[in-house]
Amino acid sequence: MGKNKKAVVYVSLKDGVLDPQGVTIHKALRQMGYDDFVSVRSGRFFELEIDADGADIDRKIDEVCSRLLANPVIEKYKVEKVK
Amino acid sequence: MGKNKKAVVYVSLKDGVLDPQGVTIHKALRQMGYDDFVSVRSGRFFELEIDADGADIDRKIDEVCSRLLANPVIEKYKVEKVK
Repeated sequence: MGKNKKAVVYVSLKDGVLDPQGVTIHKALRQMGYDDFVSVRSGRFFELEIDADGADIDRKIDEVCSRLLANPVIEKYKVEKVK
Repeated sequence: MGKNKKAVVYVSLKDGVLDPQGVTIHKALRQMGYDDFVSVRSGRFFELEIDADGADIDRKIDEVCSRLLANPVIEKYKVEKVK
């Protein structure tokens, strides 16, 4: 049995899709006096620990992204293998 | 006036702090038949666009992280300058 692998999936709204959370944070920053911030976009990420003995992992990660972690209609995702 | 800079702030729960969202996603993956995933940890990230003319930006980003974007009691954050 091998050592576990790690991958990080970054999920964010597609360009052009309104990001209410980001807008709200940006407004809050302005109200707090931080005027140097021009815009804020928010996103989520997931650190996946994966059994190194698993087969076909890349395909499975991709499936999991579009089926569970992201909403492909309005969100995009990026997978980063850590090791 | 210069070009805007960009920074990304990654916020996640400190090690050892229970992550119910990650646990739930992990369970869902198992139920969907994906048995190769050993654990899932969730986090958030924020893409900040910053006025290049702003002074003392590094300090401000750090302040904003601990005052607004993260809860320093249970969360850690990492700042990545994009350009």
